[in-house]
Amino acid sequence: MKRIAILGSTGSIGKNTLEVIKNFPRDFSLVGLSANSNIETLSEQIKRFGPKIVSVIDKQGADALEKRFGSKVKVVAGQDGILELTKNSNVDLVVLAISGSKALKPLISAIEHGKDIAIANKEALVMAGRIIMQKAKKYGAKILPIDSEQSAIWQCLEENNKDYLRKIYLTASGGPLKNINKNNFKQISLEDVLKHPCWKMGKKITVDSATLMNKGLEVIEAMNLFSADVSKIEVLIHPEVIIHSMVEFVDRSILAQLAFADMRIPIQYALSYPKRLSNGLPGLDFLKIKNLSFEKPDMGKFPCLRLAYEAARDGGGAPCVLSAADEVAVEAFLNKRINFVSIPKIIEKTMARVRLRNNPSLSDIFMLDLEARIKAMEVINN
Amino acid sequence: MKRIAILGSTGSIGKNTLEVIKNFPRDFSLVGLSANSNIETLSEQIKRFGPKIVSVIDKQGADALEKRFGSKVKVVAGQDGILELTKNSNVDLVVLAISGSKALKPLISAIEHGKDIAIANKEALVMAGRIIMQKAKKYGAKILPIDSEQSAIWQCLEENNKDYLRKIYLTASGGPLKNINKNNFKQISLEDVLKHPCWKMGKKITVDSATLMNKGLEVIEAMNLFSADVSKIEVLIHPEVIIHSMVEFVDRSILAQLAFADMRIPIQYALSYPKRLSNGLPGLDFLKIKNLSFEKPDMGKFPCLRLAYEAARDGGGAPCVLSAADEVAVEAFLNKRINFVSIPKIIEKTMARVRLRNNPSLSDIFMLDLEARIKAMEVINN
Repeated sequence: MKRIAILGSTGSIGKNTLEVIKNFPRDFSLVGLSANSNIETLSEQIKRFGPKIVSVIDKQGADALEKRFGSKVKVVAGQDGILELTKNSNVDLVVLAISGSKALKPLISAIEHGKDIAIANKEALVMAGRIIMQKAKKYGAKILPIDSEQSAIWQCLEENNKDYLRKIYLTASGGPLKNINKNNFKQISLEDVLKHPCWKMGKKITVDSATLMNKGLEVIEAMNLFSADVSKIEVLIHPEVIIHSMVEFVDRSILAQLAFADMRIPIQYALSYPKRLSNGLPGLDFLKIKNLSFEKPDMGKFPCLRLAYEAARDGGGAPCVLSAADEVAVEAFLNKRINFVSIPKIIEKTMARVRLRNNPSLSDIFMLDLEARIKAMEVINN
Repeated sequence: MKRIAILGSTGSIGKNTLEVIKNFPRDFSLVGLSANSNIETLSEQIKRFGPKIVSVIDKQGADALEKRFGSKVKVVAGQDGILELTKNSNVDLVVLAISGSKALKPLISAIEHGKDIAIANKEALVMAGRIIMQKAKKYGAKILPIDSEQSAIWQCLEENNKDYLRKIYLTASGGPLKNINKNNFKQISLEDVLKHPCWKMGKKITVDSATLMNKGLEVIEAMNLFSADVSKIEVLIHPEVIIHSMVEFVDRSILAQLAFADMRIPIQYALSYPKRLSNGLPGLDFLKIKNLSFEKPDMGKFPCLRLAYEAARDGGGAPCVLSAADEVAVEAFLNKRINFVSIPKIIEKTMARVRLRNNPSLSDIFMLDLEARIKAMEVINN
């Protein structure tokens, strides 16, 4: 029986994780939930899944929950409330389903308390991947990817096979703008971008899918998760989203992971690992698959992917600056303060202005993140 | 350093195995070779690769070799000469590249002498798969598949994952007759059949590819190699021959093995396992792959596949009778004594006439094989 806490339970990954836990009452038990401020959804989840502890960033929300549930659930509030879950001795596995850089602190806390971490967040691994992986090794915490592409690589690349890695093929749907001419990108609205062809996801990741920054962050994430040089990671556009990534070995044999595009499959694997549990989820019907195809990504059309590769090659603090600038730029786009084509421009200008450090410490990373955010805002305001 | 003997070195698999050994002089050394009667090719191989022992079935051929090479190589002759290789204490791994049921005796001998066996032969595993796997376990001999489909399944289905198997997708090119209408099968000549679209192979296996018996034998082989129930094995026509087979787990995640269609890749893996060795073989270029497609096999058009599934479900001696009858029928087709459409008819009639035994012993298997051959010849002569 694994005892689980979900950080970010009201988002898309959090909700799917609760479905998975519910399906296997003999394998998983829910200890805690955390959310920002979505009190209505959280209340529903408390009623339905009965966690023992709930963390809410929003203080008023926390008060409201306490009134509603009384002694049935322990409510903790504020930025540090979440750490009650990451250090709780009744928790074996933390599901990190918070988006953005704010996931880094709880992630570090969970690692330092020796928890296994099923991770859906990309930004923390991009900002501080090397430090995270080193700490995880030191504290015996397993980092188990939830992201469908990283899960695919993980399933293909067993621990003992890492020495034989020749190439990682990171597949990508191509995002909602794949078939739109670059000349029309200036006219692209927020609404156009929020229609993603394959997955229902949060807004930040949906915008990142449109710019292909999402894939760029995954390149850096894969580099860190699987200790692979960036030169070994190749993005391949695969619009059918059937193959979720592939690994080529030095002997030219390739393993690929395929599945119906349902987040519950990789979530369940991260939770059940090293076991696999039989489920009633939809499988692939190969007789209905008409075509599997592959294309090269267009770095000219999607400069965010190029910027991510550059940051990956630069190393040090560069991926942290990239990720912070992207968060600020995407936020500005979501608030309709900038247009779509400005996103990569803001990131590129920010990266040129923020001094990078080789081999940054965790406190350097937090400083760099802050500095990059300030610079990115300056770029937007000028 | 693995010390290797190749049984059947003058055939297609044997030749490719020699190329692999030559490429890795620090990992593999060649101890012995065996062949039927192709003395010219064997002489070339002796000169080029310098084995210590050579076994030749043909007595005259053996004499000729002895004269030619004198004390440079030990020549052993006759049906039992091959056992000098399987029991040789200087051999770590035996490559079983003999086709047909005559591979069974040397295979059993190699197992009983605790050798690891890289196996390309299908018939032995079809005839006596259960006994072979039990003996291999008892004597600590590893059975390492060379066949590209079985190698793919093996690479996807690690030992510790067998409990989680939901389905094996055994892929098939569809053979040279895939796009020919069944009504035209009566006119099909031996020459039509010997043109296989993908692999250059021996004649028996090329005919089996055309009837899809090859795939049927692989179904039974996979059942035995991976202790999977036949209901879990599904044949999928995949004309591009890029995915060499797939494994679906109970959680609906699928692993597939892909590679350029070059026999040296699976041969090398069977030789190097559990390592992988870097080679200069061609890799897949996904940007040149235009399409990956899948179809259901037509059991009405290819009754041999249906017969193989029936034999697999019947179990006991049925697969042995199937395989023996197929060998006789294919031999008759190669000698132009019967036409193409008669092959499945002869097999089906033989299977109806030969009494099957549940749980046959090895001597039962040899008796059944003989009985089936006699019956199949009677069917042909009537």
